[in-house]
Amino acid sequence: MATESATDDIMGATYRALCKHGYAAVTMQDIAAESDVSKSALHYHYERKHDLLCAFLDDLLDSFTARLDDVEGETAHERLLGTIDAVFKPSEEGPNREFKTAILEMKAQGPYDEAFRERLTEFDHTFRAHVEEILAAGVAAGEFRADLDVESTADFFLTVFNGAQTRSVAVGRPVERTRRTLVDYVETSVLAGEGAAE
Amino acid sequence: MATESATDDIMGATYRALCKHGYAAVTMQDIAAESDVSKSALHYHYERKHDLLCAFLDDLLDSFTARLDDVEGETAHERLLGTIDAVFKPSEEGPNREFKTAILEMKAQGPYDEAFRERLTEFDHTFRAHVEEILAAGVAAGEFRADLDVESTADFFLTVFNGAQTRSVAVGRPVERTRRTLVDYVETSVLAGEGAAE
Repeated sequence: MATESATDDIMGATYRALCKHGYAAVTMQDIAAESDVSKSALHYHYERKHDLLCAFLDDLLDSFTARLDDVEGETAHERLLGTIDAVFKPSEEGPNREFKTAILEMKAQGPYDEAFRERLTEFDHTFRAHVEEILAAGVAAGEFRADLDVESTADFFLTVFNGAQTRSVAVGRPVERTRRTLVDYVETSVLAGEGAAE
Repeated sequence: MATESATDDIMGATYRALCKHGYAAVTMQDIAAESDVSKSALHYHYERKHDLLCAFLDDLLDSFTARLDDVEGETAHERLLGTIDAVFKPSEEGPNREFKTAILEMKAQGPYDEAFRERLTEFDHTFRAHVEEILAAGVAAGEFRADLDVESTADFFLTVFNGAQTRSVAVGRPVERTRRTLVDYVETSVLAGEGAAE
């Protein structure tokens, strides 16, 4: 495996190359061109493009987990809203739609590519576990409806998140609109009724 | 353009070829092999693969519209549940996941392919208008919450539908689970509170 800074360089290069060329067309040469390493050095670290893309998904999952871990808030309600903001906020820089498109292409490989599917499943588990923990805490604290189905609500959030990403790619609909609808959903369907949370 | 029965044959062949080969790999030859027409006859009707796939999406939209038009029910609530069933029910026959995968691949072309994007946008409009009409009727009849935001709720249904399809492809999660969650959502967030509908 590559050293830490070489890995960072290669992961950044993979991100940029995916944005430029898309998942189907991107080559090891494209990725090397975006990095400080030669194509042969890249092949030394990752034998095939598929190995590199798997490492890239692992790296992406690490960042995603860190972003969820960074969500702050005094109450479960605040942490839930913080989570919605964290997953819907545009990445700090760059060609967000191109990147989402590459990820959607990789999702479409799910049925045929077990290594991708395993990693996509890990994303789902990580997100769902994070939301479930917040929902359960909110129910226990009386902030959220006592009869809330924690598991299926967390799973619902995940479905909505997937749908927002897909629509953003397919028809250019801004994910921001889904963010607002989800905040309303929390208001009407998750929060305990008036007075119940007092 | 092809005659009606030739079109039906070609559309069926396109469906089967997409399921077998996927969007990216499918060729005019693959489609001809699934149909009663020769490859040259196919090219007579549709100059390029892209033309044929656009006609296929148009045909799919016609079927989808017909399926929505067939939804029955005495009340808005029944029609809303019927709509959820109609869009989540597996197609009558065949390799449903393979087909959804091909559609997801085509959605991932949205940013680069204006003709696909226009057709995908038409799907969205058709579905959203159908749901909006039911929601507005339900509000007017006092079945649904008087303060329901009809537009954003219909749009939310569309996001959830997209998310269910994406997750089904990416990680093999059954859309049936989303169907049940949506039915619960109608119960908790759309229906007028106890007594309000009396």
